[in-house]
Amino acid sequence: MSIRIGIVGYGNLARGAEAAIKDNADMTLEAVFTRRDPSSVRINTAGVPVLHTDDIKNYRDKIDVLIICGGSATDLPVQTPEFAKYFNVVDSFDNHSMIPTHFENVDKASKNGGFVSVISAGWDPGMFSLNRLYGSVILPVGETYTFWGKGVSQGHSDAIRRIDGVKNAKQYTIPVERALERVRNGENPVLTTREKHTRECFVVAEEGADKARIEKEIKEMPAYFADYDTTVNFITEEELERDHSGIPHGGFVIRTGRTNGGKSTHVVEYSLKLDSNPEFTASVLVACARAAYRFHKEGQIGCKTLFDIPPAYLSPLDGATLRKNLL
Amino acid sequence: MSIRIGIVGYGNLARGAEAAIKDNADMTLEAVFTRRDPSSVRINTAGVPVLHTDDIKNYRDKIDVLIICGGSATDLPVQTPEFAKYFNVVDSFDNHSMIPTHFENVDKASKNGGFVSVISAGWDPGMFSLNRLYGSVILPVGETYTFWGKGVSQGHSDAIRRIDGVKNAKQYTIPVERALERVRNGENPVLTTREKHTRECFVVAEEGADKARIEKEIKEMPAYFADYDTTVNFITEEELERDHSGIPHGGFVIRTGRTNGGKSTHVVEYSLKLDSNPEFTASVLVACARAAYRFHKEGQIGCKTLFDIPPAYLSPLDGATLRKNLL
Repeated sequence: MSIRIGIVGYGNLARGAEAAIKDNADMTLEAVFTRRDPSSVRINTAGVPVLHTDDIKNYRDKIDVLIICGGSATDLPVQTPEFAKYFNVVDSFDNHSMIPTHFENVDKASKNGGFVSVISAGWDPGMFSLNRLYGSVILPVGETYTFWGKGVSQGHSDAIRRIDGVKNAKQYTIPVERALERVRNGENPVLTTREKHTRECFVVAEEGADKARIEKEIKEMPAYFADYDTTVNFITEEELERDHSGIPHGGFVIRTGRTNGGKSTHVVEYSLKLDSNPEFTASVLVACARAAYRFHKEGQIGCKTLFDIPPAYLSPLDGATLRKNLL
Repeated sequence: MSIRIGIVGYGNLARGAEAAIKDNADMTLEAVFTRRDPSSVRINTAGVPVLHTDDIKNYRDKIDVLIICGGSATDLPVQTPEFAKYFNVVDSFDNHSMIPTHFENVDKASKNGGFVSVISAGWDPGMFSLNRLYGSVILPVGETYTFWGKGVSQGHSDAIRRIDGVKNAKQYTIPVERALERVRNGENPVLTTREKHTRECFVVAEEGADKARIEKEIKEMPAYFADYDTTVNFITEEELERDHSGIPHGGFVIRTGRTNGGKSTHVVEYSLKLDSNPEFTASVLVACARAAYRFHKEGQIGCKTLFDIPPAYLSPLDGATLRKNLL
C-alpha cells in the first residue's frame, strides 16, 4: 500500500516535496494544506485537493505522514509541535541553536499523540550533520570543517533588501578555495570567518538611490557582512531575473583525522552541488517521511533526527536487496 | 563501564584496531586471539594477553565484542559464524558477491547464540555502501558511480607476485581523471572498465628474469589487468621499500540525480584519501563494535550491517549532545 503524504504550505520547499513524491513509487500525495484561501492555490498535481490548515485534523485517517514546509523562524516552532499531536510529521527546522528546544517540544507532542516525528531533515542540518557525525566517530582524533556554497543565502539576500534604496538583491556565499585546499592537505588550519567564506551581492537599486551609501551599509552590516570580504555589484532588474533567478547551493564537510598515534592522516570529504536548494532539501524530507512511516508501523513514538534513522529505513527496498545491490 | 574488546588475528587490520581502541576512551582491549603460538606474537599494548583462538570460549564473560580481523577469502566465512555463536562480533567481510551468503550464516549463528553481529564494515563495503544508499534514496532518479584509488590493491599485487621471475610487486589502482570530471559534470556517462581506472605496477624482477615476458604476462592477465590500461615499471627492491611500503587507498562515490521532472541536477560526492587502508578500515570496525554493544544491551539479536545502524549508535555521546553539537 502506498504511503499517503500530506504537505503543509506551498512555497518552494513544498513544491519540491510535491515533485519528489512523484519520483517515489511507494508514495502518494493526498492533500496540500495552506493557511491561504485554498481556492487561490493552484498546485502541480492534478486531482489532489488543496485544503485549509484549519481542516487538517479531519484528515487524520487519510494521511500517514505530514511534511511541514514552513519557515524555521516563526512557522515550524508552532506548526510542528501542533501537528505532531495528530500526525507523523517531518520538518526541515534549520535554526541550529534552537534545535534542542524544538526537539523537546516536538518529542513531547509526538509522544502524547503516539506518533513519530523527524525534525531538521535536509542537508544542513541533515546530510552535512550525518557526515560530521560519521567523520567524528570513525576518526575521533581529528577536526571537522564545514564550508557552504557556492550558493544563494536567503537570509542574507533578505537583509540586503531591507536597506533603504534597494529594490531587489541576491547574495551568494562562496567558500575560499585556498582554505579548502589547506584543509584537504591535512594542515588542520584554524580559520577565521573571513578566511572561510566570501560574500558576493547582486543588488538592484531604486532609481536615484545613493549606491555608495548602499554598498557601505551592506559591507558594514554586523553579523551578516562585516566579518566577511564582501563584493557588491549593482545590476538591473532584468539582469537579476536573467542571471540570478535560481536557488543553487551546496558545500563541503571535510573530516581530517589521524590514526596509529598520529602516524597516518586520512581525509574524508562530502560535497553537494545543488541546482535547487529547496528541491534537494525536499527530497531528503520525502525519504525521511518513509522512515517515519516505518517507525510508526513498528509502534515507535517520539522525535527523531537523521542521527536516529537506520539508513535502510529511508529506502523502499528490503534489507536483502540493499545488501545485494548496494553494500 | 568500558566496552571490553577482543581482537582475533594480528595482521595489519588487527594492529589498526588495536591502535583505534586507544583513541576511543570508552573501550578497552582485553585480549588478542591468534592461531599462531601466542608466545610468538608481540603486540603493541602493554599488559594485554595474547591467547590462542582455541581458548576463546573461556573468555565469553570477559569480552563484550570480538573484532574479527581475518581475510575474506578463507578466514571470515568460517570464523565469523563460529564466533558469532558465543560473542557479539564485527568483521570486514569484503567479498561483495558472497555478502548475502555470509549474512545468512552469521545471522543464524548470532540468533542461536543471542548475540549481535555487524558484518562488512569498513569503507567498501562500508562507508562507500552507505553513500550509495543515501544517494539513491535522496535522489531516486539518478546514477551512482564508484571509483577506487589512488591506492594499493592487495589482490592485484599478489597476482603479480605469482608470476615466474617476479620477486616483489605493488599495484596501484588509479581513477581516470577525465571520467571523474564527466561524472561530476552530470553527463551520466556509460563508462567501460578501461575508461574508469588505470593500473600502475611496480615490479622487482629476479636477477636475469625476462622483463619483457613479465610485462606481457601482467598486461594480458585476464580479469586482473587485461581490461585495463596497465603500466609496468621495473624497480629495485630498495626503491620498492623506500617509495612503495605504505598501504594508501581511497576513492569516490558520486551520485548524480535530477529533481522536478528532470529540470534540476544535483551532484553528491563522497571521497576518501587514506594514508593507511587497514587503519581506516579498523577505525570503522571499532565504531561498529560500539553499536553492536548497544544493540546487545537493548536485547537485539542477529546480523546487521551499517545500513541497519542508527548513526548515533556509533558515537559515545548521547543524543542531546549530538543534536546540540553536530546537527
